[in-house]
Amino acid sequence: MAVYTEVPDEDLTRFLAEYDAGRLLSFKGIAEGVENTNYIVHTDRGSFILTLYEKRVDPKDLPFFLGLMEHLSGKGVTCPLPMHDRQGRSLGTLCGRPAALMTFLEGVWVRRPAVGHCRSLGTTLAAMHKAALDYPGERTNALSVEDWRPIFAAVADRADTLQAGLAAEMEAELTYLEANWPQDLPLGVIHADLFPDNVFFLNSRLSGLIDFYFACRDALAYDIAVCLNAWCFEPDLSFNVTKARAMLTAYADRRPLTTAEAAALPLLARGAAMRFFVTRLYDWLNHPPGAFVRPKDPLEYARRIRFHRSVGSAGEYGLD
Amino acid sequence: MAVYTEVPDEDLTRFLAEYDAGRLLSFKGIAEGVENTNYIVHTDRGSFILTLYEKRVDPKDLPFFLGLMEHLSGKGVTCPLPMHDRQGRSLGTLCGRPAALMTFLEGVWVRRPAVGHCRSLGTTLAAMHKAALDYPGERTNALSVEDWRPIFAAVADRADTLQAGLAAEMEAELTYLEANWPQDLPLGVIHADLFPDNVFFLNSRLSGLIDFYFACRDALAYDIAVCLNAWCFEPDLSFNVTKARAMLTAYADRRPLTTAEAAALPLLARGAAMRFFVTRLYDWLNHPPGAFVRPKDPLEYARRIRFHRSVGSAGEYGLD
Repeated sequence: MAVYTEVPDEDLTRFLAEYDAGRLLSFKGIAEGVENTNYIVHTDRGSFILTLYEKRVDPKDLPFFLGLMEHLSGKGVTCPLPMHDRQGRSLGTLCGRPAALMTFLEGVWVRRPAVGHCRSLGTTLAAMHKAALDYPGERTNALSVEDWRPIFAAVADRADTLQAGLAAEMEAELTYLEANWPQDLPLGVIHADLFPDNVFFLNSRLSGLIDFYFACRDALAYDIAVCLNAWCFEPDLSFNVTKARAMLTAYADRRPLTTAEAAALPLLARGAAMRFFVTRLYDWLNHPPGAFVRPKDPLEYARRIRFHRSVGSAGEYGLD
Repeated sequence: MAVYTEVPDEDLTRFLAEYDAGRLLSFKGIAEGVENTNYIVHTDRGSFILTLYEKRVDPKDLPFFLGLMEHLSGKGVTCPLPMHDRQGRSLGTLCGRPAALMTFLEGVWVRRPAVGHCRSLGTTLAAMHKAALDYPGERTNALSVEDWRPIFAAVADRADTLQAGLAAEMEAELTYLEANWPQDLPLGVIHADLFPDNVFFLNSRLSGLIDFYFACRDALAYDIAVCLNAWCFEPDLSFNVTKARAMLTAYADRRPLTTAEAAALPLLARGAAMRFFVTRLYDWLNHPPGAFVRPKDPLEYARRIRFHRSVGSAGEYGLD
């Protein structure tokens, strides 16, 4: 939600001159992206997004992310397409930071997804998984099951300030997840952060996906589990099985789940909820007072974990 | 530098339906405007700026500001043009706040203005003053000479924490300005905040003015004095008389200054510097720790005041 790097007009003009992107008409910093600085750039050729990668992104990972967006675009999965400069590079440098210029993806993210949106999400998620099967890039998930405990451990002593007993409950949950985490599920490239604000719609049609900066190679069904958490709970945290059924059915129509994937889904959903619980808990207990970005409530994910613990099989999510 | 109000997609769609502005393609909060929330909106008809007026703007003033932009646009002074809804209103309501949809003005503000930019500014400032002569709206300057002392008084006891002797110096300066402030200069509608970030250029041509939310009726020459402060000092705070001469000459070519205006210019420049000194000092000493918006250094304006005190006549600014 911030512009971390102020780009002077002369620097941007020099940067754009490296691309065949037209003449600069305007640029404005946009209040999106917790990790990076983003500008919307208008030129006489159209609209672009300029991203400057800030400290929280490892520059070594950028070729994986940018290459993935190109790969997906080339296979018809709509997402921002990195522009190449005259030397053929998609990654440049601006104001001392790695920077990329991308096509602007029109669309609006839906604050209150309906069943139809969840159905479209399922279809596109499966299409993305299939399109990325032959993507050669490698990046391990830096926020997988073995990474949750160290994040939790850093703030566990203060967890009970949010809710009595929370530390012990999540400690036990982590132990369970670590001991039972499925190992042999089909792997592929996953988005890993496909929340509603990363999925654009035009009218009721899904127009594209953005923000691939958590993408990695991991169990494909884990991506589904993230979406179950992100799309299928109501504001009061009740689980909407109609939305989940629509998403899972649409996904399975394009890419049927294996028996092992279906069986693992409740556990994967617990794990996906834990992943967001631990990072939110950490941010909640570590944000500077008065900081501009208000941290998100970790307890919403504690409640999701408890819900998923009560689920006996993927059928309860609506999967046939 | 912030999005104070998050607009949900459904609310914006309903709001846009009141206008003949096309179908929503995308909208992003932009990190501009200290006072208001701004979104850049793309529709199938083009780009727009959506502004939600936050607490620091008095809703009673909005018809003056919006009417002025329409008036200036109609006379060829390029600025954002408020759209009218189907009932003919330029001011609507969105998320409980007054809101206006405006045409998007392409252009880039120049971080390091050159002499040519200052010349263009002078020409456009005079054109704006002349175009607004028959604007019927009334709004007094809420930050004129009588308003500076109360702002200063609220923080004067801490002014010396910035610089020893600052409180006494500025106290005396205020007394001098109050006693000698010119009363009979030609009046008109002034922008009152025409800093480089409110003036857009395309290539080297001035493409338009934005942010009329300090506009008011006051001495026209005071607007020139604001621009002398905002455009004609180098980053090391040395005064660039070549830039000032270019600006003043271009202005006077379109609208010759009266003898009284020319004579008053050094005093007006001291006052304009004081206006920004007191508000910056106030913000500097009152911003919450850890706040996202970093306050601007008031001492830059103390130094400008001292420079203008040393100026004997408008000729020293380069005015013939």
